[in-house]
Amino acid sequence: MKKADSNDIRKQFGKRVRELRKARGYSQEAFAHECEIHRTYIGDVERGERNIALDNITKIAATLGIELSELFDGISAIPPSNK
Amino acid sequence: MKKADSNDIRKQFGKRVRELRKARGYSQEAFAHECEIHRTYIGDVERGERNIALDNITKIAATLGIELSELFDGISAIPPSNK
Repeated sequence: MKKADSNDIRKQFGKRVRELRKARGYSQEAFAHECEIHRTYIGDVERGERNIALDNITKIAATLGIELSELFDGISAIPPSNK
Repeated sequence: MKKADSNDIRKQFGKRVRELRKARGYSQEAFAHECEIHRTYIGDVERGERNIALDNITKIAATLGIELSELFDGISAIPPSNK
């Protein structure tokens, strides 16, 4: 089965995090502090440059006050050709 | 904000993967092959022993034929005390 391009998934995820962070009025620095993740790492994630792992994904969801399923809402793991 | 215990999240995720894999009739070995992830790694993930990252999470969702939001359905990032 063809898989979604990992670079694309990272970019989709980063875009989603940035949107949700801004919607809550967090600066990148304040958000990173609340997540207990380094600010430059959050920046990297938002630019789609990190293969972020479950523990940090969970910190982000918890800081945003949403469940993981909502954090991934609209992010597609399945390429259009497989749908 | 209190965060969900990372060990608990890994265990919730592993349990979910195992359930979905079995529901589709995959052996761990066949599933790992389809995901293009090593079999022992999938075993570790299912036991909640790995901090699995986005690229591999995406491979699992794509192999199961579901979106990431569905893969995380019912997995709680927010401890009950924060709800």
